[in-house]
Amino acid sequence: MADGQSYPVDNVNKVKRVYERGRYDYATVHELLDKGMMCHVSYVIDGQPYCTPTLYWREGTRLYWHGSSASRMLRNLSEGEPACLTIAFLDSLVLARCGFNHSVDYRAVMAFGKARLVEDEAEKEHALVMMVDRFFPGRTAQIRESSKKEIKATGVLYMDIEKASAKIRAKGVGDEEEDYLLPIYAERVPVYQTLGEPEACKRVLDGVTRPESLSMYTAGKPLETAVLEAYEVSYPGSYPDVVKG
Amino acid sequence: MADGQSYPVDNVNKVKRVYERGRYDYATVHELLDKGMMCHVSYVIDGQPYCTPTLYWREGTRLYWHGSSASRMLRNLSEGEPACLTIAFLDSLVLARCGFNHSVDYRAVMAFGKARLVEDEAEKEHALVMMVDRFFPGRTAQIRESSKKEIKATGVLYMDIEKASAKIRAKGVGDEEEDYLLPIYAERVPVYQTLGEPEACKRVLDGVTRPESLSMYTAGKPLETAVLEAYEVSYPGSYPDVVKG
Repeated sequence: MADGQSYPVDNVNKVKRVYERGRYDYATVHELLDKGMMCHVSYVIDGQPYCTPTLYWREGTRLYWHGSSASRMLRNLSEGEPACLTIAFLDSLVLARCGFNHSVDYRAVMAFGKARLVEDEAEKEHALVMMVDRFFPGRTAQIRESSKKEIKATGVLYMDIEKASAKIRAKGVGDEEEDYLLPIYAERVPVYQTLGEPEACKRVLDGVTRPESLSMYTAGKPLETAVLEAYEVSYPGSYPDVVKG
Repeated sequence: MADGQSYPVDNVNKVKRVYERGRYDYATVHELLDKGMMCHVSYVIDGQPYCTPTLYWREGTRLYWHGSSASRMLRNLSEGEPACLTIAFLDSLVLARCGFNHSVDYRAVMAFGKARLVEDEAEKEHALVMMVDRFFPGRTAQIRESSKKEIKATGVLYMDIEKASAKIRAKGVGDEEEDYLLPIYAERVPVYQTLGEPEACKRVLDGVTRPESLSMYTAGKPLETAVLEAYEVSYPGSYPDVVKG
Protein backbone atom coordinates (compact mmCIF):
# COMPACT_ATOMS: atom_id res chain seq x y z
CA MET A 1 0.00 0.00 0.00
CA ALA A 2 1.00 3.58 -0.49
CA ASP A 3 2.34 5.40 2.56
CA GLY A 4 0.81 8.67 1.43
CA GLN A 5 4.04 10.06 0.06
CA SER A 6 5.29 7.44 -2.31
CA TYR A 7 4.05 4.48 -4.35
CA PRO A 8 4.71 0.94 -3.14
CA VAL A 9 7.46 -0.97 -4.93
CA ASP A 10 7.26 -4.55 -6.08
CA ASN A 11 8.31 -6.67 -9.01
CA VAL A 12 5.96 -4.85 -11.40
CA ASN A 13 7.27 -1.32 -10.99
CA LYS A 14 10.75 -1.78 -9.50
CA VAL A 15 13.33 -0.12 -11.73
CA LYS A 16 15.91 -2.75 -12.50
CA ARG A 17 18.60 -1.14 -14.61
CA VAL A 18 21.09 0.17 -12.10
CA TYR A 19 22.55 3.08 -13.99
CA GLU A 20 19.21 4.76 -14.23
CA ARG A 21 17.58 6.25 -11.24
CA GLY A 22 14.29 4.81 -10.06
CA ARG A 23 12.03 7.08 -8.05
CA TYR A 24 8.72 6.24 -6.41
CA ASP A 25 7.90 9.35 -4.40
CA TYR A 26 4.71 11.24 -5.17
CA ALA A 27 6.58 14.51 -5.75
CA THR A 28 8.73 13.15 -8.58
CA VAL A 29 6.08 10.92 -10.14
CA HIS A 30 3.32 13.53 -10.03
CA GLU A 31 5.40 16.42 -11.34
CA LEU A 32 6.41 14.40 -14.39
CA LEU A 33 2.82 13.32 -14.94
CA ASP A 34 1.66 16.93 -14.69
CA LYS A 35 4.18 18.14 -17.26
CA GLY A 36 2.80 15.77 -19.87
CA MET A 37 -0.12 16.04 -22.25
CA MET A 38 0.02 12.98 -24.51
CA CYS A 39 0.68 9.66 -22.80
CA HIS A 40 0.65 6.11 -24.09
CA VAL A 41 -1.74 3.64 -22.46
CA SER A 42 -1.33 -0.12 -22.68
CA TYR A 43 -4.15 -2.55 -22.24
CA VAL A 44 -4.90 -6.10 -23.35
CA ILE A 45 -7.75 -7.47 -25.40
CA ASP A 46 -7.89 -11.19 -26.14
CA GLY A 47 -4.22 -11.52 -25.29
CA GLN A 48 -3.23 -8.76 -27.73
CA PRO A 49 -1.56 -5.75 -26.15
CA TYR A 50 -2.45 -2.30 -27.49
CA CYS A 51 -0.38 0.82 -27.03
CA THR A 52 -2.53 3.88 -27.60
CA PRO A 53 -1.44 7.53 -27.52
CA THR A 54 -3.99 9.78 -25.85
CA LEU A 55 -4.52 12.90 -23.75
CA TYR A 56 -4.48 12.39 -19.98
CA TRP A 57 -4.38 14.29 -16.71
CA ARG A 58 -3.95 13.63 -13.01
CA GLU A 59 -6.15 14.35 -10.02
CA GLY A 60 -4.56 13.18 -6.76
CA THR A 61 -3.51 9.59 -7.32
CA ARG A 62 -6.08 9.14 -10.08
CA LEU A 63 -5.31 9.42 -13.79
CA TYR A 64 -7.92 10.25 -16.40
CA TRP A 65 -7.67 9.87 -20.12
CA HIS A 66 -9.73 10.39 -23.18
CA GLY A 67 -11.35 7.85 -25.45
CA SER A 68 -14.30 7.87 -27.80
CA SER A 69 -17.25 5.78 -26.71
CA ALA A 70 -16.78 4.00 -30.00
CA SER A 71 -13.19 3.00 -29.35
CA ARG A 72 -12.20 -0.56 -28.70
CA MET A 73 -10.40 0.62 -25.59
CA LEU A 74 -13.51 1.81 -23.82
CA ARG A 75 -15.70 -1.07 -24.69
CA ASN A 76 -13.18 -3.44 -23.19
CA LEU A 77 -11.78 -1.58 -20.22
CA SER A 78 -14.98 -0.43 -18.57
CA GLU A 79 -15.03 -3.44 -16.27
CA GLY A 80 -11.70 -2.54 -14.71
CA GLU A 81 -8.89 -3.96 -16.76
CA PRO A 82 -5.17 -3.91 -15.90
CA ALA A 83 -3.50 -0.99 -17.64
CA CYS A 84 -0.21 0.84 -17.76
CA LEU A 85 -0.03 4.53 -18.52
CA THR A 86 3.37 5.89 -19.51
CA ILE A 87 4.63 9.40 -20.11
CA ALA A 88 8.15 9.93 -21.48
CA PHE A 89 10.17 13.03 -22.25
CA LEU A 90 13.17 12.74 -24.58
CA ASP A 91 15.76 15.25 -23.35
CA SER A 92 18.91 14.58 -25.33
CA LEU A 93 20.72 12.22 -27.66
CA VAL A 94 23.94 10.91 -26.15
CA LEU A 95 26.82 9.99 -28.46
CA ALA A 96 29.48 8.19 -26.46
CA ARG A 97 32.89 6.68 -27.24
CA CYS A 98 31.51 3.14 -27.62
CA GLY A 99 28.23 1.70 -28.82
CA PHE A 100 27.24 0.42 -25.40
CA ASN A 101 27.27 3.91 -23.88
CA HIS A 102 25.25 5.52 -26.64
CA SER A 103 22.01 6.50 -24.97
CA VAL A 104 19.44 9.20 -24.49
CA ASP A 105 18.67 11.40 -21.53
CA TYR A 106 15.03 11.09 -20.67
CA ARG A 107 12.42 11.28 -17.95
CA ALA A 108 9.60 8.76 -17.80
CA VAL A 109 6.83 7.57 -15.53
CA MET A 110 5.08 4.23 -15.75
CA ALA A 111 1.85 4.01 -13.74
CA PHE A 112 -0.04 0.79 -13.13
CA GLY A 113 -3.58 0.12 -12.05
CA LYS A 114 -7.01 -0.92 -13.27
CA ALA A 115 -8.66 1.21 -15.94
CA ARG A 116 -12.36 1.90 -15.61
CA LEU A 117 -14.95 3.91 -17.48
CA VAL A 118 -16.26 7.05 -15.76
CA GLU A 119 -19.97 6.26 -15.56
CA ASP A 120 -21.29 8.40 -12.73
CA GLU A 121 -22.97 11.44 -14.32
CA ALA A 122 -21.60 14.05 -11.92
CA GLU A 123 -18.11 12.60 -12.10
CA LYS A 124 -18.26 12.53 -15.89
CA GLU A 125 -19.41 16.14 -15.97
CA HIS A 126 -16.47 17.12 -13.78
CA ALA A 127 -14.06 15.05 -15.89
CA LEU A 128 -15.26 16.62 -19.15
CA VAL A 129 -14.67 20.08 -17.69
CA MET A 130 -11.18 19.20 -16.48
CA MET A 131 -10.30 17.46 -19.75
CA VAL A 132 -10.35 20.96 -21.25
CA ASP A 133 -9.69 23.22 -18.25
CA ARG A 134 -6.73 21.26 -16.91
CA PHE A 135 -4.85 22.33 -20.06
CA PHE A 136 -6.68 25.59 -20.76
CA PRO A 137 -7.74 27.02 -17.40
CA GLY A 138 -11.27 28.40 -17.31
CA ARG A 139 -11.91 27.61 -20.93
CA THR A 140 -15.11 25.60 -20.43
CA ALA A 141 -16.83 28.78 -19.21
CA GLN A 142 -15.72 30.57 -22.39
CA ILE A 143 -16.99 28.11 -24.97
CA ARG A 144 -20.28 26.70 -26.21
CA GLU A 145 -21.85 24.29 -23.74
CA SER A 146 -21.63 20.60 -24.61
CA SER A 147 -24.73 18.93 -26.00
CA LYS A 148 -26.07 15.72 -24.49
CA LYS A 149 -25.08 13.94 -27.67
CA GLU A 150 -21.50 15.17 -27.37
CA ILE A 151 -21.29 14.17 -23.73
CA LYS A 152 -22.59 10.74 -24.60
CA ALA A 153 -20.08 10.37 -27.42
CA THR A 154 -17.12 11.29 -25.25
CA GLY A 155 -15.64 8.54 -23.16
CA VAL A 156 -13.43 9.16 -20.16
CA LEU A 157 -11.42 6.44 -18.52
CA TYR A 158 -9.76 6.60 -15.13
CA MET A 159 -7.24 4.57 -13.18
CA ASP A 160 -6.30 4.81 -9.55
CA ILE A 161 -2.53 4.47 -9.50
CA GLU A 162 -1.65 1.33 -7.57
CA LYS A 163 2.04 1.38 -8.43
CA ALA A 164 4.25 3.81 -10.27
CA SER A 165 7.88 4.46 -10.99
CA ALA A 166 9.82 7.33 -12.44
CA LYS A 167 13.04 6.77 -14.36
CA ILE A 168 15.35 9.65 -15.06
CA ARG A 169 18.59 9.69 -17.00
CA ALA A 170 20.20 13.09 -17.07
CA LYS A 171 23.94 12.55 -17.16
CA GLY A 172 24.78 13.20 -20.80
CA VAL A 173 27.90 11.40 -22.00
CA GLY A 174 29.03 8.73 -19.54
CA ASP A 175 31.94 6.69 -20.82
CA GLU A 176 34.22 4.07 -19.31
CA GLU A 177 37.11 5.85 -17.61
CA GLU A 178 39.72 4.38 -19.96
CA ASP A 179 37.71 5.40 -23.04
CA TYR A 180 38.12 9.10 -22.26
CA LEU A 181 41.77 8.69 -23.34
CA LEU A 182 40.74 7.68 -26.88
CA PRO A 183 40.69 10.20 -29.74
CA ILE A 184 36.95 9.81 -30.26
CA TYR A 185 34.41 12.62 -30.52
CA ALA A 186 31.46 12.46 -28.10
CA GLU A 187 28.57 14.82 -27.53
CA ARG A 188 25.10 15.42 -26.18
CA VAL A 189 22.44 16.85 -28.50
CA PRO A 190 19.61 18.46 -26.51
CA VAL A 191 16.03 17.85 -27.68
CA TYR A 192 13.27 20.34 -26.94
CA GLN A 193 9.51 20.16 -27.34
CA THR A 194 8.34 23.74 -27.66
CA LEU A 195 5.30 25.74 -28.68
CA GLY A 196 5.09 27.64 -31.92
CA GLU A 197 3.23 30.89 -32.52
CA PRO A 198 -0.47 30.39 -31.75
CA GLU A 199 -2.56 30.70 -34.93
CA ALA A 200 -6.05 32.09 -34.44
CA CYS A 201 -8.75 30.29 -36.41
CA LYS A 202 -9.39 32.31 -39.58
CA ARG A 203 -13.10 32.32 -38.85
CA VAL A 204 -12.89 33.96 -35.43
CA LEU A 205 -15.39 36.85 -35.46
CA ASP A 206 -14.21 40.46 -35.58
CA GLY A 207 -13.56 41.82 -32.13
CA VAL A 208 -13.06 38.43 -30.49
CA THR A 209 -9.59 38.35 -28.96
CA ARG A 210 -7.40 35.74 -27.33
CA PRO A 211 -8.38 35.26 -23.67
CA GLU A 212 -5.78 36.22 -21.08
CA SER A 213 -6.28 32.75 -19.57
CA LEU A 214 -4.24 31.25 -22.43
CA SER A 215 -1.22 33.40 -21.59
CA MET A 216 0.94 30.41 -20.64
CA TYR A 217 0.82 29.19 -24.24
CA THR A 218 3.39 31.40 -25.94
CA ALA A 219 5.79 30.75 -28.80
CA GLY A 220 9.12 29.29 -27.78
CA LYS A 221 8.00 28.01 -24.40
CA PRO A 222 8.58 24.33 -23.61
CA LEU A 223 5.28 22.47 -23.85
CA GLU A 224 5.90 20.87 -20.46
CA THR A 225 6.32 24.26 -18.79
CA ALA A 226 3.03 25.56 -20.21
CA VAL A 227 1.24 22.35 -19.25
CA LEU A 228 2.55 22.52 -15.68
CA GLU A 229 1.65 26.20 -15.37
CA ALA A 230 -1.86 25.40 -16.55
CA TYR A 231 -2.05 22.61 -13.99
CA GLU A 232 -1.17 24.99 -11.19
CA VAL A 233 -3.95 27.35 -12.23
CA SER A 234 -6.52 24.56 -12.46
CA TYR A 235 -5.37 22.72 -9.35
CA PRO A 236 -4.00 25.58 -7.21
CA GLY A 237 -1.27 24.92 -4.68
CA SER A 238 0.25 21.96 -6.47
CA TYR A 239 3.57 23.45 -7.47
CA PRO A 240 4.42 26.52 -5.42
CA ASP A 241 8.16 26.18 -6.04
CA VAL A 242 7.94 25.70 -9.76
CA VAL A 243 5.32 28.23 -10.68
CA LYS A 244 5.39 30.88 -7.99
CA GLY A 245 9.01 30.55 -6.83
CA MET B 1 -1.49 -11.18 -45.59
CA ALA B 2 0.32 -8.12 -46.84
CA ASP B 3 0.06 -7.40 -50.55
CA GLY B 4 3.59 -6.01 -50.64
CA GLN B 5 2.47 -2.40 -50.57
CA SER B 6 0.22 -2.14 -47.56
CA TYR B 7 -0.57 -3.91 -44.31
CA PRO B 8 -3.66 -6.11 -44.03
CA VAL B 9 -6.59 -4.63 -42.14
CA ASP B 10 -8.67 -6.44 -39.57
CA ASN B 11 -10.34 -5.78 -36.26
CA VAL B 12 -7.00 -5.31 -34.48
CA ASN B 13 -5.60 -2.46 -36.55
CA LYS B 14 -8.64 -0.97 -38.29
CA VAL B 15 -8.94 2.72 -37.44
CA LYS B 16 -12.43 3.21 -36.11
CA ARG B 17 -12.88 6.88 -35.39
CA VAL B 18 -14.17 8.30 -38.60
CA TYR B 19 -12.92 11.83 -38.41
CA GLU B 20 -9.36 10.68 -38.27
CA ARG B 21 -7.73 9.24 -41.26
CA GLY B 22 -6.60 5.62 -41.15
CA ARG B 23 -3.79 4.61 -43.50
CA TYR B 24 -2.32 1.18 -44.02
CA ASP B 25 0.04 1.65 -46.96
CA TYR B 26 3.73 0.94 -46.49
CA ALA B 27 4.73 4.42 -47.67
CA THR B 28 2.78 6.24 -44.95
CA VAL B 29 3.42 3.75 -42.16
CA HIS B 30 7.14 3.38 -42.87
CA GLU B 31 7.86 7.08 -43.27
CA LEU B 32 6.31 7.83 -39.88
CA LEU B 33 8.23 4.96 -38.31
CA ASP B 34 11.47 6.24 -39.82
CA LYS B 35 10.95 9.75 -38.47
CA GLY B 36 10.78 8.46 -34.91
CA MET B 37 13.46 7.63 -32.38
CA MET B 38 11.67 6.82 -29.13
CA CYS B 39 8.64 4.55 -29.38
CA HIS B 40 6.47 2.94 -26.75
CA VAL B 41 6.20 -0.86 -26.76
CA SER B 42 3.39 -2.74 -25.07
CA TYR B 43 3.64 -6.32 -23.96
CA VAL B 44 1.95 -8.50 -21.37
CA ILE B 45 3.41 -10.41 -18.45
CA ASP B 46 1.10 -12.44 -16.23
CA GLY B 47 -1.90 -10.49 -17.49
CA GLN B 48 -0.28 -7.14 -16.64
CA PRO B 49 0.32 -4.85 -19.61
CA TYR B 50 3.54 -2.82 -19.69
CA CYS B 51 4.11 0.29 -21.76
CA THR B 52 7.83 0.89 -22.13
CA PRO B 53 9.52 3.78 -23.92
CA THR B 54 12.58 2.70 -25.89
CA LEU B 55 14.71 3.36 -28.98
CA TYR B 56 13.68 1.51 -32.12
CA TRP B 57 14.32 1.37 -35.84
CA ARG B 58 12.90 -0.29 -38.96
CA GLU B 59 14.42 -2.60 -41.54
CA GLY B 60 11.92 -3.55 -44.24
CA THR B 61 8.82 -4.78 -42.43
CA ARG B 62 10.83 -5.64 -39.32
CA LEU B 63 11.14 -3.42 -36.28
CA TYR B 64 14.02 -3.61 -33.83
CA TRP B 65 14.22 -2.12 -30.39
CA HIS B 66 16.59 -1.95 -27.52
CA GLY B 67 16.39 -3.64 -24.15
CA SER B 68 18.94 -4.62 -21.56
CA SER B 69 19.43 -8.35 -21.15
CA ALA B 70 18.49 -7.72 -17.56
CA SER B 71 15.14 -6.16 -18.37
CA ARG B 72 11.91 -7.93 -17.64
CA MET B 73 10.86 -7.27 -21.21
CA LEU B 74 13.57 -9.41 -22.76
CA ARG B 75 13.31 -12.29 -20.39
CA ASN B 76 9.65 -12.61 -21.14
CA LEU B 77 9.34 -11.78 -24.82
CA SER B 78 12.12 -13.95 -26.22
CA GLU B 79 9.70 -16.77 -27.05
CA GLY B 80 7.65 -14.60 -29.37
CA GLU B 81 5.05 -12.68 -27.45
CA PRO B 82 2.32 -10.46 -28.87
CA ALA B 83 3.45 -6.85 -28.83
CA CYS B 84 2.36 -3.44 -30.06
CA LEU B 85 4.89 -0.78 -30.96
CA THR B 86 3.58 2.76 -31.24
CA ILE B 87 5.17 5.99 -32.38
CA ALA B 88 3.29 9.27 -32.00
CA PHE B 89 4.10 12.84 -32.96
CA LEU B 90 2.19 15.68 -31.29
CA ASP B 91 1.84 18.44 -33.90
CA SER B 92 -0.49 21.01 -32.40
CA LEU B 93 -2.98 21.80 -29.66
CA VAL B 94 -6.43 22.58 -31.04
CA LEU B 95 -8.69 24.95 -29.10
CA ALA B 96 -12.15 24.85 -30.61
CA ARG B 97 -15.47 26.57 -29.89
CA CYS B 98 -16.84 23.66 -27.83
CA GLY B 99 -15.28 21.06 -25.60
CA PHE B 100 -16.05 18.19 -27.94
CA ASN B 101 -13.96 19.68 -30.75
CA HIS B 102 -10.94 20.41 -28.60
CA SER B 103 -8.28 18.11 -29.93
CA VAL B 104 -4.69 17.79 -31.02
CA ASP B 105 -3.16 17.36 -34.43
CA TYR B 106 -0.94 14.33 -34.42
CA ARG B 107 0.55 11.54 -36.48
CA ALA B 108 0.82 8.04 -35.05
CA VAL B 109 1.55 4.47 -36.08
CA MET B 110 0.57 1.37 -34.20
CA ALA B 111 2.35 -1.81 -35.33
CA PHE B 112 1.38 -5.28 -34.21
CA GLY B 113 3.26 -8.55 -34.26
CA LYS B 114 5.20 -11.03 -32.15
CA ALA B 115 8.28 -9.75 -30.35
CA ARG B 116 11.32 -12.00 -30.28
CA LEU B 117 14.87 -11.78 -28.99
CA VAL B 118 17.63 -11.49 -31.60
CA GLU B 119 19.68 -14.57 -30.80
CA ASP B 120 21.59 -15.38 -33.98
CA GLU B 121 25.13 -14.03 -33.51
CA ALA B 122 25.53 -12.52 -36.97
CA GLU B 123 22.10 -10.93 -36.84
CA LYS B 124 22.81 -9.51 -33.40
CA GLU B 125 26.11 -8.07 -34.62
CA HIS B 126 24.30 -6.39 -37.50
CA ALA B 127 21.56 -5.12 -35.19
CA LEU B 128 24.04 -3.62 -32.73
CA VAL B 129 25.74 -1.75 -35.56
CA MET B 130 22.43 -0.42 -36.89
CA MET B 131 21.19 0.50 -33.41
CA VAL B 132 23.89 3.20 -33.52
CA ASP B 133 24.45 3.76 -37.25
CA ARG B 134 20.78 4.03 -38.17
CA PHE B 135 20.71 7.27 -36.13
CA PHE B 136 24.35 8.28 -36.54
CA PRO B 137 25.50 7.02 -39.94
CA GLY B 138 28.92 5.41 -39.98
CA ARG B 139 29.48 5.99 -36.29
CA THR B 140 30.29 2.39 -35.34
CA ALA B 141 33.46 2.62 -37.45
CA GLN B 142 34.46 5.78 -35.57
CA ILE B 143 34.13 4.53 -31.99
CA ARG B 144 35.72 1.93 -29.73
CA GLU B 145 34.78 -1.63 -30.65
CA SER B 146 32.25 -3.31 -28.37
CA SER B 147 33.56 -5.87 -25.90
CA LYS B 148 32.07 -9.34 -25.67
CA LYS B 149 30.72 -8.41 -22.27
CA GLU B 150 28.96 -5.34 -23.68
CA ILE B 151 27.48 -7.33 -26.55
CA LYS B 152 26.20 -9.92 -24.12
CA ALA B 153 24.69 -7.25 -21.88
CA THR B 154 22.82 -5.58 -24.75
CA GLY B 155 19.53 -7.08 -25.72
CA VAL B 156 17.84 -6.47 -29.06
CA LEU B 157 14.26 -7.41 -29.74
CA TYR B 158 12.60 -7.59 -33.13
CA MET B 159 9.08 -7.89 -34.45
CA ASP B 160 7.94 -8.62 -37.97
CA ILE B 161 5.02 -6.29 -38.54
CA GLU B 162 1.91 -8.36 -39.11
CA LYS B 163 -0.52 -5.45 -39.01
CA ALA B 164 -0.10 -1.73 -38.77
CA SER B 165 -2.10 1.44 -39.05
CA ALA B 166 -1.26 5.10 -39.29
CA LYS B 167 -3.59 7.76 -37.90
CA ILE B 168 -3.14 11.35 -38.90
CA ARG B 169 -5.08 14.40 -37.75
CA ALA B 170 -3.87 17.57 -39.39
CA LYS B 171 -6.88 19.82 -39.74
CA GLY B 172 -6.38 22.30 -36.90
CA VAL B 173 -9.63 23.85 -35.66
CA GLY B 174 -12.67 21.98 -36.92
CA ASP B 175 -15.92 23.27 -35.45
CA GLU B 176 -19.60 22.62 -36.12
CA GLU B 177 -20.72 24.94 -38.89
CA GLU B 178 -23.17 26.82 -36.64
CA ASP B 179 -20.50 27.35 -33.96
CA TYR B 180 -18.41 29.54 -36.27
CA LEU B 181 -21.08 32.21 -35.78
CA LEU B 182 -20.41 32.38 -32.03
CA PRO B 183 -18.16 35.05 -30.50
CA ILE B 184 -15.67 32.47 -29.21
CA TYR B 185 -11.93 32.57 -29.70
CA ALA B 186 -10.36 29.44 -31.27
CA GLU B 187 -6.80 28.65 -32.26
CA ARG B 188 -4.17 26.09 -33.09
CA VAL B 189 -0.90 26.10 -31.14
CA PRO B 190 1.86 24.31 -33.08
CA VAL B 191 4.19 22.00 -31.16
CA TYR B 192 7.72 21.30 -32.36
CA GLN B 193 10.33 18.79 -31.27
CA THR B 194 13.66 20.28 -32.25
CA LEU B 195 17.35 19.83 -31.64
CA GLY B 196 19.38 22.17 -29.50
CA GLU B 197 23.02 23.11 -29.98
CA PRO B 198 25.16 19.96 -29.80
CA GLU B 199 27.42 20.06 -26.73
CA ALA B 200 30.77 18.30 -27.13
CA CYS B 201 31.81 16.20 -24.14
CA LYS B 202 34.21 18.30 -22.05
CA ARG B 203 36.71 15.48 -22.03
CA VAL B 204 37.08 15.18 -25.81
CA LEU B 205 40.83 15.22 -26.54
CA ASP B 206 42.46 18.26 -28.15
CA GLY B 207 42.34 18.10 -31.92
CA VAL B 208 39.38 15.71 -32.05
CA THR B 209 36.59 17.38 -33.99
CA ARG B 210 32.96 16.63 -34.76
CA PRO B 211 32.70 14.16 -37.65
CA GLU B 212 31.04 15.44 -40.83
CA SER B 213 28.75 12.39 -40.64
CA LEU B 214 26.80 14.06 -37.83
CA SER B 215 25.98 17.06 -39.99
CA MET B 216 22.23 16.34 -39.99
CA TYR B 217 22.10 17.02 -36.24
CA THR B 218 22.10 20.80 -36.09
CA ALA B 219 20.46 23.23 -33.70
CA GLY B 220 16.91 24.20 -34.60
CA LYS B 221 16.23 21.27 -36.88
CA PRO B 222 13.17 19.11 -36.15
CA LEU B 223 14.30 15.84 -34.59
CA GLU B 224 12.16 13.90 -37.06
CA THR B 225 13.89 15.52 -40.03
CA ALA B 226 17.35 14.66 -38.72
CA VAL B 227 16.27 11.11 -37.93
CA LEU B 228 14.81 10.62 -41.41
CA GLU B 229 17.92 12.09 -43.08
CA ALA B 230 20.08 9.70 -41.06
CA TYR B 231 17.85 6.84 -42.16
CA GLU B 232 18.36 7.69 -45.81
CA VAL B 233 22.14 7.65 -45.36
CA SER B 234 22.09 4.32 -43.53
CA TYR B 235 19.47 2.70 -45.75
CA PRO B 236 20.08 4.45 -49.09
CA GLY B 237 17.25 4.87 -51.56
CA SER B 238 14.46 4.86 -49.01
CA TYR B 239 13.33 8.44 -49.32
CA PRO B 240 14.46 10.01 -52.61
CA ASP B 241 11.70 12.63 -52.55
CA VAL B 242 12.21 13.75 -48.99
CA VAL B 243 15.95 13.82 -48.76
CA LYS B 244 17.24 14.32 -52.27
CA GLY B 245 14.33 16.13 -53.89
